[in-house]
Amino acid sequence: MEQTLNVLDKVNSPEDVKKLSISEMNKLADEIRHYIMKKVNTTGGHLGPNLGMVEATIALHYVFNSPVDKIVFDVSHQCYPHKFLTGRKEGFTDPEKYQTYTGYTAPEESAHDWFKVGHTATSVSLACGLAKARDLNGGKENVVAIIGDGSLSGGEAYEGLNNAAVLGSNIIIIVNDNDMSIAENHGGLYQNLKLLRDTKGQTECNFFKSLGFDYYYIDEGHDIEKLISVFNEVKDLNRPVLVHMHTIKGKGLDAAEHNKEHYHWILPGELNPDYTPAKGGEDYASLTTSYILKKAEQGSPIIAISPATPGVSGFTPEFRQKAGIHYTDVGIAEEHAVAFASGIAKNGGKPVLAMMSSFVQRTYDQLSQDLALNSNPATLLIFWGGISGADATHLTSFDIPLISNIPNMVYLAPTCREEYLRMLDWSVEQDKYPVAIRVPFGEAKSRGEEDNTDYSMLNKYKIEEAGSKVAIIALGTFFGLGELVKTALKEKMGIDATLINPRFITGVDEEMLESLKGNHDIVITLEDGVLDGGFGEKISRYYGSSDMKVLNFGAKKEFTDRIPLETLYQKYHLTPDLILEDIKACL
Amino acid sequence: MEQTLNVLDKVNSPEDVKKLSISEMNKLADEIRHYIMKKVNTTGGHLGPNLGMVEATIALHYVFNSPVDKIVFDVSHQCYPHKFLTGRKEGFTDPEKYQTYTGYTAPEESAHDWFKVGHTATSVSLACGLAKARDLNGGKENVVAIIGDGSLSGGEAYEGLNNAAVLGSNIIIIVNDNDMSIAENHGGLYQNLKLLRDTKGQTECNFFKSLGFDYYYIDEGHDIEKLISVFNEVKDLNRPVLVHMHTIKGKGLDAAEHNKEHYHWILPGELNPDYTPAKGGEDYASLTTSYILKKAEQGSPIIAISPATPGVSGFTPEFRQKAGIHYTDVGIAEEHAVAFASGIAKNGGKPVLAMMSSFVQRTYDQLSQDLALNSNPATLLIFWGGISGADATHLTSFDIPLISNIPNMVYLAPTCREEYLRMLDWSVEQDKYPVAIRVPFGEAKSRGEEDNTDYSMLNKYKIEEAGSKVAIIALGTFFGLGELVKTALKEKMGIDATLINPRFITGVDEEMLESLKGNHDIVITLEDGVLDGGFGEKISRYYGSSDMKVLNFGAKKEFTDRIPLETLYQKYHLTPDLILEDIKACL
Repeated sequence: MEQTLNVLDKVNSPEDVKKLSISEMNKLADEIRHYIMKKVNTTGGHLGPNLGMVEATIALHYVFNSPVDKIVFDVSHQCYPHKFLTGRKEGFTDPEKYQTYTGYTAPEESAHDWFKVGHTATSVSLACGLAKARDLNGGKENVVAIIGDGSLSGGEAYEGLNNAAVLGSNIIIIVNDNDMSIAENHGGLYQNLKLLRDTKGQTECNFFKSLGFDYYYIDEGHDIEKLISVFNEVKDLNRPVLVHMHTIKGKGLDAAEHNKEHYHWILPGELNPDYTPAKGGEDYASLTTSYILKKAEQGSPIIAISPATPGVSGFTPEFRQKAGIHYTDVGIAEEHAVAFASGIAKNGGKPVLAMMSSFVQRTYDQLSQDLALNSNPATLLIFWGGISGADATHLTSFDIPLISNIPNMVYLAPTCREEYLRMLDWSVEQDKYPVAIRVPFGEAKSRGEEDNTDYSMLNKYKIEEAGSKVAIIALGTFFGLGELVKTALKEKMGIDATLINPRFITGVDEEMLESLKGNHDIVITLEDGVLDGGFGEKISRYYGSSDMKVLNFGAKKEFTDRIPLETLYQKYHLTPDLILEDIKACL
Repeated sequence: MEQTLNVLDKVNSPEDVKKLSISEMNKLADEIRHYIMKKVNTTGGHLGPNLGMVEATIALHYVFNSPVDKIVFDVSHQCYPHKFLTGRKEGFTDPEKYQTYTGYTAPEESAHDWFKVGHTATSVSLACGLAKARDLNGGKENVVAIIGDGSLSGGEAYEGLNNAAVLGSNIIIIVNDNDMSIAENHGGLYQNLKLLRDTKGQTECNFFKSLGFDYYYIDEGHDIEKLISVFNEVKDLNRPVLVHMHTIKGKGLDAAEHNKEHYHWILPGELNPDYTPAKGGEDYASLTTSYILKKAEQGSPIIAISPATPGVSGFTPEFRQKAGIHYTDVGIAEEHAVAFASGIAKNGGKPVLAMMSSFVQRTYDQLSQDLALNSNPATLLIFWGGISGADATHLTSFDIPLISNIPNMVYLAPTCREEYLRMLDWSVEQDKYPVAIRVPFGEAKSRGEEDNTDYSMLNKYKIEEAGSKVAIIALGTFFGLGELVKTALKEKMGIDATLINPRFITGVDEEMLESLKGNHDIVITLEDGVLDGGFGEKISRYYGSSDMKVLNFGAKKEFTDRIPLETLYQKYHLTPDLILEDIKACL
């Protein structure tokens, strides 16, 4: 194929797309697909969603006049084809530039991108805003929102649709219906989408029409000619319209078309014929699923819940099949997930809701009102919490300020497999508190001793090693850093520091903090997250009226974007050497 | 009427309702209505929503077997009739007991209440949870969720409906369709509800059916016999059903039926024939609306936005009419409101989104991802923020931790009308930052001087009065308390304290804090909100490595429920005397 990539060579902007014939555009689609697969197979990334949007994106840029006409991508992990056509193709064709562009839309990269978007269900509301501003300023351009790939189940998408339908002026919603979320779709709406597909959009009972949209259906979402024809029809209309477009997730790659969930996002090398998945040891996800299945077997009314991200928590197809009624995927619907868990707990069930740290922030009000205010004993597992080198859209360093300042919530930070299992079991079996557990990432390491703590005694920190002068309060995933700091203090400064494992994020162990005053001059706190509103500040507040010095270590309040973790650790002074320097400066 | 209240006398529980004839139940409805009006006219409270639910609630308790069958009220400001029938009627009939029960459902009051609920759109998800736990435990009871009065536009309601429809077992959703939100309804869905009402539920294009529900329509939502008939039909069905019930908000009170928005919630005495509304002076709401109208007249693409709470921000019917295209009510859809504002700002509009502090917490992810990550210059006005004696469901003391720990957000705290107007105008005219302003409550007091600050110089605190030894950093609505503390320090301790008006909630003025070290021993912070994750902790963190003592004053992290403000101030040491005691203990 390499030798015939002649169409892509000609395309550097949407203007170039408009000059192509249909057959050239079809060829362009093949070429784009080829490079998406090649690039994603090298770097890892979102595969299926992008393969499904190739033709539609070409047709969009053929018909609409971006960036005057404004195209907003939802989730934006389906924007790779758009990047090819808007001056960024070398990010896919040139291996040297594979890391140049983000995997999401990014206004700083291109005038054709309107928003930095990585969470889902947002495009319709954002596009409504663009359209409203256009109307206020007397403009006439088209505003197009792409939504789909599962995100129609999110409340924000619905709020957006409900308002877009009554905007009274031009807005074009394109529903990319690939019959999938990350995993399979869940919810009543998807039966309606199926009925619409089965009747080629003809059935009278139509979710989109019920919201008031002028509705268009495209059955052949990979037929560029048909796509162009419908897009031309809806272009420049002075009313809200909705185009329901049937596509195939993973289109053009046999394996991805047949295993849509697996190929949603792939690891480097997965498309190689000789690829064999790394055999993982026991990790926190597998500990979790084993625990849930064991409880279910024992007759517990336990139920694992995922808001459409089962992969995050090890809820594999095999686990789901074994769990049966003890598993529910609510679709991309995090708010529902939390309220649902609260209701289950209220009525004697044992919900275990697993969410990625970055997405738990979609549920603050439900955590506060539906759950914590009612003190219902649901268990939330927060996966991947911590400072990371991730995209700005998927940072995982804000969950501590988010969760821990809500009254009644108990937020726990285990440091090893024993603590994790003890906390999980305590949480599931107790009936007083809404509990969240910040699940460490990766391999489930043992620290060698059983944990028999009664976590009902809230906010009791544990002195792991008693010392003097300096006390290190090392939270959860930064406990290991605390150990390193203790060693360094001994080796380099001859200080025998106290090492504390607080375990509770949501409260201050006043008795222990008080006792430290006797023979300590400095307390340092280490937390794997943003400092503002976090754990350490509460320790600082506690000691504010005393002579105790306090140093809080953690991340600065900022959105970082694919900054390597080591760089962040340097910047935030999260290495033993830098921490020692700060301690020295304070002594 | 008083002399014939014989049916209510007989009713102390749902069991008693089941013994009544239809004509007795109709009489009971009249009696309940009578007492609701009398009580609410004395204490103030939600009127229209409750008047609309009288017959339906009687019919529910006639048909279903509460508390074995579980009835979940949405918003729960429509639960007064339910309280009459579940052992709490004296809270309405006996003026001595008017304050005994909350205005919302409350499990601690009655086994017939399942959740403490005050925010909206939650009942379906919560009921789904009750139903799922029932299924896990092999139960057979009915689970009923009431939703409506505008809350169908909320994303959580949709997420709940989408999941309830595929629950596969008994759940009964009752949509109380009174054609209203707090103000009029907004969104495409409401056109479908109208079509359904107009066709008596017969039209094929049916929002609820599109989600997969078995659908029932009741046109006469105040006809107890008809209600009972349909409720009997859906009772004990082993599948999700939805009953769409047409009611009249304010039913039975002429004025309320004709001015549904005004009578949604009334002040004490409003039903008296001689009631005349207190003539308010200039308040922050009227300052806001005047500013917006002036800018609109001048041709600014400014647009005021409300998520269905226009009364909070002074967006009266007169204002809305004058504002025209410069005003949008998006319905109860806070998430959409924030993303919409971000989109408007991105495309050159000037959105001013007004929200009540308690409801801004429904939008954390939108504030973070849709708005702050994109640095779009939208203006958010946060009304009513502060410690209050409100119901636990409507506390307004959490907005500082919520908003101020999000990167890029600028959160401002004005202390007087001049600062407010300057901040508002700065925010609207600048194009760099997403800005929230914590609007003080009530009368817009002047502090006598113009404010010409350039707020583009972020995080510059203002020394209002220079002194030594003690520095008082008094934030926003607690600036007045700071003045009192300064006076008390002078009078009682002879200390000439420094008084600082920080104005910026979202950042620390390191230069100023550093300069205080020279001649101050203690810094105290005063904030009108919860301490955890708030403003003061950041000052404590800053001074952690120094000898400066810091005392943070504010609310404890807890859900308080109708505790008088004075009691809270005593408890939290928010009076000059108590603050002085704490300072003394620290010197």
